[in-house]
Amino acid sequence: MNNLVDIAIIGSGPAGISAAINAKIRHKSFYLFGSSDLSDKVQRSECISNYPPFFDISGKDLNEKLSEHLKKAKISITEKRITGIYNMGSYFALLSDQEEFDAKSVIIATGVEAARPIKGERELLGRGVSYCATCDGNLYKGKTIAVICDNPSMEEEAEYLAALAEKVYYQPLFKESKFNAENVEILSSPVTEILGERKASGVRCRNGFEIELDGVFFLKQSVSPAVLIQGLKTDDNCVAVDRNMATNIKGCFAAGDCTGAPYQIAKAVGEGNIAAHSAFKYLSNQE
Amino acid sequence: MNNLVDIAIIGSGPAGISAAINAKIRHKSFYLFGSSDLSDKVQRSECISNYPPFFDISGKDLNEKLSEHLKKAKISITEKRITGIYNMGSYFALLSDQEEFDAKSVIIATGVEAARPIKGERELLGRGVSYCATCDGNLYKGKTIAVICDNPSMEEEAEYLAALAEKVYYQPLFKESKFNAENVEILSSPVTEILGERKASGVRCRNGFEIELDGVFFLKQSVSPAVLIQGLKTDDNCVAVDRNMATNIKGCFAAGDCTGAPYQIAKAVGEGNIAAHSAFKYLSNQE
Repeated sequence: MNNLVDIAIIGSGPAGISAAINAKIRHKSFYLFGSSDLSDKVQRSECISNYPPFFDISGKDLNEKLSEHLKKAKISITEKRITGIYNMGSYFALLSDQEEFDAKSVIIATGVEAARPIKGERELLGRGVSYCATCDGNLYKGKTIAVICDNPSMEEEAEYLAALAEKVYYQPLFKESKFNAENVEILSSPVTEILGERKASGVRCRNGFEIELDGVFFLKQSVSPAVLIQGLKTDDNCVAVDRNMATNIKGCFAAGDCTGAPYQIAKAVGEGNIAAHSAFKYLSNQE
Repeated sequence: MNNLVDIAIIGSGPAGISAAINAKIRHKSFYLFGSSDLSDKVQRSECISNYPPFFDISGKDLNEKLSEHLKKAKISITEKRITGIYNMGSYFALLSDQEEFDAKSVIIATGVEAARPIKGERELLGRGVSYCATCDGNLYKGKTIAVICDNPSMEEEAEYLAALAEKVYYQPLFKESKFNAENVEILSSPVTEILGERKASGVRCRNGFEIELDGVFFLKQSVSPAVLIQGLKTDDNCVAVDRNMATNIKGCFAAGDCTGAPYQIAKAVGEGNIAAHSAFKYLSNQE
């Protein structure tokens, strides 16, 4: 086993940051997985007017202040994308590409975008559906694939896949896509379903159009919680939690947008705080 | 009926402020009942280090910033102490001394101190137990009473009672008490129980000592939620709420310390936000 920390916090938005701050104060060992850019969603908020005591603050300014807080608190972000969490009974093993991280408890704070897998995504994961270009790209040499990418910073992985595959149907979930190659076709209508029974065999788009293919890659900053950890109870695509932010899996908590509306910074910060305190209690009961 | 507002928010701490800010943004009519000093508990916090993005901030400074936020948002505080809420079916009637305020929905955000009534307080309210010197003082002319006061700003009411009663057993719940009179005896051991079956007839102190008397006044900045509104479900002295901060009473929500641990500003602000959004949904369903 690797170095076993007390808490693995997945997500560097307001919920994850709030949890991390409390973990630091309480002298817990922890990972804060995410991006040094913190939350994309916050960053793109033009004006936040209901997170007291800020009468109005831009998302960019709030992110800067949060960064500064982390720096002063000596909290560093582990810039890894967790693609799988395995419940090992007494601890959790978290995978990022082929790297493993171990923690006694987990706080999922992956945001709302990640919370909504499309039809077939969860069911066919590992059978034609992949979250990891590095791990699985080689399986699709000379084949036809779809690549759905939710962030400009991950287009590099799309390029890597395009260099391997014969044909790539590409769907960027953002406006500023710069990716272009001869064998790449940009999908004009978004993928709404992955087709296939035992293995992904195609995708269906919103316009009803179906495309036959060999595999589908999701290049996401964070993976849907329900896909991330097997057996996690969700409710209308949100992680189901109780008042203590405990999920149905012992030692696994959730906070922020991934637990449902209202999608608000205040709620996320509050839930991150509660989730951290629940994790402390869980850890102290384990001892 | 008086002017009927959408929401009555009871409590001017972080939870109440968070709810009010959201109500304002959403153009709801509302009262924010409390004190222009906001939360006493926040004010007395030497250093808050887990409310991002403040690495450390004194409670005094945070309260100042919150005050400024309210001012900029043009939110005014109604400086009234609500002593009773009556569920009128389609609306709530809130009493402050002898004044009535009406609202379609209620958010209770009265803090943790208020959440813990002592034994007998709830049971004997209106039968020898009172929250209102102005309303009930005259009943105790020439009699023996106990006065329990949780805030320096309310000692003036204790003075008023001492001028009426023959003898006052006085228990200030703070250090800086300035109250003194010939017929006043400061209790050396705190009251733990109010005695009496059909009517308050005495108090028992922590040291086991019992005092016979005619009435007990609680001079509290805010009244225990379970006493405030009949039939409110509590759980271990905390207001029982679901994930949407709804109590068991339709249209009545709660947020902040009164709903239980962790007693944290982040949690209070988050819950105030959620409670406000739940109230908006409730109001829109009523229309």
